[in-house]
Amino acid sequence: MTAPADLLVVHAAELATLATGSVPRRGAALADPGIVADGAVAASGGRITAVGPTEAVLRSVSRTPATTTVDASGRLVTPGLVDPHTHLVFAGHRAQEFTMRLHGAGYAEIDLVAMGRRRLDRMLAHGTTTVEAKSGYGLSMADELKILRATARLGASHAVGIVPTFLGAHAVPPERKADPDGYVRDVCELMLPAVVREGLAEFCDVFCERGAFSIEQSRRILSAAGRLGLRLKIHADQLSASGGARLAAELGALSADHLEHTPSDDLAAMAERGVTAGLLPGATFFLLHQNYADARAMVELGVPIALATDFNPGSSPTFSMQMAIALGCIGMRLTPAEALSAATINAAHAVGRAADAGSLAPGKRADLVIWGISSVAELPLHFGTNMADTVIVDGRVVIGGGRTT
Amino acid sequence: MTAPADLLVVHAAELATLATGSVPRRGAALADPGIVADGAVAASGGRITAVGPTEAVLRSVSRTPATTTVDASGRLVTPGLVDPHTHLVFAGHRAQEFTMRLHGAGYAEIDLVAMGRRRLDRMLAHGTTTVEAKSGYGLSMADELKILRATARLGASHAVGIVPTFLGAHAVPPERKADPDGYVRDVCELMLPAVVREGLAEFCDVFCERGAFSIEQSRRILSAAGRLGLRLKIHADQLSASGGARLAAELGALSADHLEHTPSDDLAAMAERGVTAGLLPGATFFLLHQNYADARAMVELGVPIALATDFNPGSSPTFSMQMAIALGCIGMRLTPAEALSAATINAAHAVGRAADAGSLAPGKRADLVIWGISSVAELPLHFGTNMADTVIVDGRVVIGGGRTT
Repeated sequence: MTAPADLLVVHAAELATLATGSVPRRGAALADPGIVADGAVAASGGRITAVGPTEAVLRSVSRTPATTTVDASGRLVTPGLVDPHTHLVFAGHRAQEFTMRLHGAGYAEIDLVAMGRRRLDRMLAHGTTTVEAKSGYGLSMADELKILRATARLGASHAVGIVPTFLGAHAVPPERKADPDGYVRDVCELMLPAVVREGLAEFCDVFCERGAFSIEQSRRILSAAGRLGLRLKIHADQLSASGGARLAAELGALSADHLEHTPSDDLAAMAERGVTAGLLPGATFFLLHQNYADARAMVELGVPIALATDFNPGSSPTFSMQMAIALGCIGMRLTPAEALSAATINAAHAVGRAADAGSLAPGKRADLVIWGISSVAELPLHFGTNMADTVIVDGRVVIGGGRTT
Repeated sequence: MTAPADLLVVHAAELATLATGSVPRRGAALADPGIVADGAVAASGGRITAVGPTEAVLRSVSRTPATTTVDASGRLVTPGLVDPHTHLVFAGHRAQEFTMRLHGAGYAEIDLVAMGRRRLDRMLAHGTTTVEAKSGYGLSMADELKILRATARLGASHAVGIVPTFLGAHAVPPERKADPDGYVRDVCELMLPAVVREGLAEFCDVFCERGAFSIEQSRRILSAAGRLGLRLKIHADQLSASGGARLAAELGALSADHLEHTPSDDLAAMAERGVTAGLLPGATFFLLHQNYADARAMVELGVPIALATDFNPGSSPTFSMQMAIALGCIGMRLTPAEALSAATINAAHAVGRAADAGSLAPGKRADLVIWGISSVAELPLHFGTNMADTVIVDGRVVIGGGRTT
């Protein structure tokens, strides 16, 4: 007896399952994309029911008149990409407005939703099916809540899956510059409890950097967030070695992101605690900085690596995880297989979605990309080109048609 | 009495006409994209019939039931992008095969056409409507002719306009290494006449560089090509200052391309003769080189600048002129307006197509892009993202729908 399938993707030249383990393991998870030649995926009710060689999958499921079959002959098929670090929701869309603190206050929640939707559409068209989205352009109770409520609406209404993060400590707002500790206190005692009360965030993040929040302030905010049940992230060591990565290890954060200036002792501490490095090469590229984060050192130390767009208006306005992969390879010397792992399973771990996303395995959401290339090795080659031809979310073809039968 | 229109694009937030002059002028052509606010374009029979403010255009043409009207409200509209330097036609498509001299001999002309078509589809989807295509992966009479015949077939059958260039002197083939001058003689006396006899090329190009062809050899080939009526291009100063740019000025080449190591005296000679600089930032980026060509010095010296993908399997496998624009701005510090000029009207001049392409003016082909952004200033921002939502070639919508009425 075989189970009926809603969706069948068959005859992938390379099916990169990324199903090499349930957690990022030292080295291994980065190196092995779990390739199946002439691979297939079957899904039912939005969930994957079978993965393997096409012949075996076709034996294990039954086709009905309602089954959509997509022929991926000659094509690479991967999990949908996971973008684990974005500043998705802010107001303003014109170049002139691309400065920090973008007048969130001047826009209604519904406008924020509309702008966020257009950005998600663009990300989805480039193969991203799960996105972490931070607040942080409000910097007041009312505006941070507005941004997170808009984020929640997007999560409820868009095909792309959303992981919401509270980043009230993105910057000290100008009117609080005289008393930054007072702002930190508000974040801890007023904003965080309100965010948690409304269930608006899964993660709390802090921008730990000279000019933003100190190690001491960051520890205070993240500890308060942890006590309230949020999981932790941190912007660490982007412009200078500030101890942020070490703090992430101390607090057991899921990820420390940026890491352009992290000393190797602190990377070793991250490896020890299993903190994922969220690498944001788009910001390095767009800001004309010379030093990409030292991804090769991280791989050697056993730090799990995730890649993200860091989508934001000021320092990395790219929507494309394909570009993050290309920059990860070209700028950071990751191999294509490492970069793919970093953009799928490791990114899913970094946002607490590994049970649902980031690899192709029975029970996971049927989020897939069918590419206009035939192998993982080609992923970074056509940098700047959208090579995601067909995108499937929850077992439904949402972008492109492919050759369906 | 008003003329009927087949196509109307109306209400562009910014219509960048690039119609600021018929030749690249010092400074001016680079700086002024000829913006019309609330702009419109009308076309009939594939040619532009009117350009200007929407109200004025609507008064000057008549709509019929057959008129397609595209509402570009809130959007930037530009001419179709012109990619003036690509190695479009070669065999092999897998990463492993991405080496020089890609087994052109092993593939039939029809395979080359099929591969070329897929690449042109990808370029078109990213907003490119005119492409220069060089031979140079054959390096024998038979294979160079095969590549150029495939290129001619593509030009006759694809929406993207093709400008064919003979680059028999791309490299000295391995079997001729002992007698490179003998190969140069074959290029001049056998291959060039055959190419011209069949009408297979408009341009002749030479890779002038240590390890490829010397100044003397390059002069011999380009002079022979000029005598046969071909126009001239040269790969100059990519890896070292070899005198190639100066030779381009001496011979009156339409463009000298690469120029990563060109001394300023040679740039001044190019400015003097009006030789366009073909800038290829994708190669600098992909090869991890540190030095982009000094575009700012060129602008100051009055060298007309064009941007190109340099699409080729080894050093710049990007299909996207949007990426060339982004790299031109981020890597070379061009302004968005300069980069757009470089990717349209100046590129059209560099491939001898300025009468047809590169700007929006009555009589030119109706090749347009409607963008998912509202201003020229935003063109480089979303680097790596395809923001070309609707592409129109010869007055027909070939990519995307837009909001048609």
